Amino acid sequence: MKVHGKSFRSIWRDPSQHGVRIIDQTLLPFAFEEKQLVSMEQAVDAIRGMRVRGAPLIGVTAAYGVALAMREDGSNTALDRACRQLQATRPTAVNLAWALARMKATLTPLDPLDREAAAWHLADELAEEDVATNAAIGRHGAVLLKSLHQQHGRTVNVLTHCNAGWIATVDWGTALSAIYHAHDEGTPVHVWVEETRPRNQGLLTAWELREHGVPHTYIVDNAGGHLMQHGQVDIVLVGADRVSRRGDVANKIGTYLKALSARDNDIPFYAAVPSSTIDWNLNDALAEIEIEQRHADEVRILRGRSHDGLTRDIQLLDPATPVANPGFDVTPARLVTGIVTERGIVMPDRLESLFRKST
Amino acid sequence: MKVHGKSFRSIWRDPSQHGVRIIDQTLLPFAFEEKQLVSMEQAVDAIRGMRVRGAPLIGVTAAYGVALAMREDGSNTALDRACRQLQATRPTAVNLAWALARMKATLTPLDPLDREAAAWHLADELAEEDVATNAAIGRHGAVLLKSLHQQHGRTVNVLTHCNAGWIATVDWGTALSAIYHAHDEGTPVHVWVEETRPRNQGLLTAWELREHGVPHTYIVDNAGGHLMQHGQVDIVLVGADRVSRRGDVANKIGTYLKALSARDNDIPFYAAVPSSTIDWNLNDALAEIEIEQRHADEVRILRGRSHDGLTRDIQLLDPATPVANPGFDVTPARLVTGIVTERGIVMPDRLESLFRKST
Repeated sequence: MKVHGKSFRSIWRDPSQHGVRIIDQTLLPFAFEEKQLVSMEQAVDAIRGMRVRGAPLIGVTAAYGVALAMREDGSNTALDRACRQLQATRPTAVNLAWALARMKATLTPLDPLDREAAAWHLADELAEEDVATNAAIGRHGAVLLKSLHQQHGRTVNVLTHCNAGWIATVDWGTALSAIYHAHDEGTPVHVWVEETRPRNQGLLTAWELREHGVPHTYIVDNAGGHLMQHGQVDIVLVGADRVSRRGDVANKIGTYLKALSARDNDIPFYAAVPSSTIDWNLNDALAEIEIEQRHADEVRILRGRSHDGLTRDIQLLDPATPVANPGFDVTPARLVTGIVTERGIVMPDRLESLFRKST
Repeated sequence: MKVHGKSFRSIWRDPSQHGVRIIDQTLLPFAFEEKQLVSMEQAVDAIRGMRVRGAPLIGVTAAYGVALAMREDGSNTALDRACRQLQATRPTAVNLAWALARMKATLTPLDPLDREAAAWHLADELAEEDVATNAAIGRHGAVLLKSLHQQHGRTVNVLTHCNAGWIATVDWGTALSAIYHAHDEGTPVHVWVEETRPRNQGLLTAWELREHGVPHTYIVDNAGGHLMQHGQVDIVLVGADRVSRRGDVANKIGTYLKALSARDNDIPFYAAVPSSTIDWNLNDALAEIEIEQRHADEVRILRGRSHDGLTRDIQLLDPATPVANPGFDVTPARLVTGIVTERGIVMPDRLESLFRKST
């Protein structure tokens, strides 16, 4: 998508063929800086330091990390070491494990001298797959937004939570992919961007939308219900971390509250996800998913720009104040109008028939 | 209530009889400082500069402001001028207008030389009335918390939003009055303190509770629904800015989302208010109350302590990003389990019979 009017992906091959380039996401939205990764160690640092974030992007970055390792040394030892070190950066990331397993399975049978070229090729392929999946999600989602526009006869007001945008993927994003596609096709869209405390990923969403020219308004998480009560939201559209077989949506903390409010005001609630996010082993997500308790400093410390123009961290509350910081919540399938996937849009209880019968 | 182990009110007569003392609430929770008000002009500044906040406290501060004016000059001109200047500090505050009208009605018939003493007397009376009302609210609310304790056989987990504490009143507060009374009587209580973006009044609530020794945990506003889904909340208890005749609750933005979540998880939702907060001319608050849109800087700029120990403001988002900042929302009576008042606890549809038949 666009930054300063120029098209970007969140990771791309360096024109000099020396490595890959990323956007340093730790600096966003306060500064936009590219960063070159020319070694596996730099890929490890980028993932661990959250310069790249979002499950799909982490997986692709790790794949390129393997390619960078193979350029230096194509041996079995080097391949094992690269996969092990890259996997250790974010041990719980599903896409990371999946991407590394795919790299290893493809490279292991090859002659060590052929591994570098094959690694670059496969990493490129993983990146293109991600882009194609997200583009398909976006095309389906855009049809939904267009039909809401036709139904209401005015700009469609979409409320989104967290960042399900292109910088969390290689390109397009998931929920925001639908918005970008609708906007690019001429459907008038306005986005209510929720701040998403504690990590304020709404800042990233607002940055993305501004750079791409999509009308939007930033709101605190408390404001969404009120806007829905007053007819100012036509659809809630979010991404998801995990979707259960029956269509429960595990997503960033606070999503459930917006689903409740959408239901109370007869507003459709959709999650947009690649099918890789659906966990077919999970049925009742509320009962089965363990609550991830994240560090209190995410709540305590905030980053912003101070009067002197510097980016600073400030402590919002006394270190002695006890904090609880659950990272996500579960929106039960009964509150979910539909799931937008790369194969189309389905009601939660039709997920299985869309994917399982044909795979 | 207690600060550093010592009992405080939010406004009190200076022992030297030179004026009144307040707590400078603009510095909380980062610093605790008393401030002396010895002139009407200082009372005006304190209200306008939000060194005192909360409707009941503003009203009482204005009453003392009139007393300070009368000490200098008991003439009709001085009385008119004091009331006009004090009223202009926060033109929409109902308690402020009410307190000033009461001062004026009492003082006008008196000889100018008798006005100062009468003004001090009436201002003291208004302060005592506020304390008595809030104490009564607290006693009724504490019974509710005690019965929840007996029902569950463990610590009662209360979730609260915004600051309905003693520093918004002369003493005790409203929702927190119930918590203080329960705690002081030995009912084991733990409070989930919601941050309450954008102005983070949760910081004040956490400060109050810590100083008084009530167990509590600070959470972002997004976390409340998740905690309710997992049985970690036994009651939602909030204050209110305005309650309609039929029991709709207008309160700080985000309250409605917690009421929805409470209903979805069979958790009782109560508002604690003095009867002066009930607007008998208002029936359907959602349809009849106009939305107060507050300044975008409340969302954009945050205050905290930086590494150098200084209290600093930081800019969270680009000044070019559009912001919407509705100040409150309406929780419809259908989601309200009960209203805690100084006369007792009633279901929303019994409010009128509790107050109107006997007044």
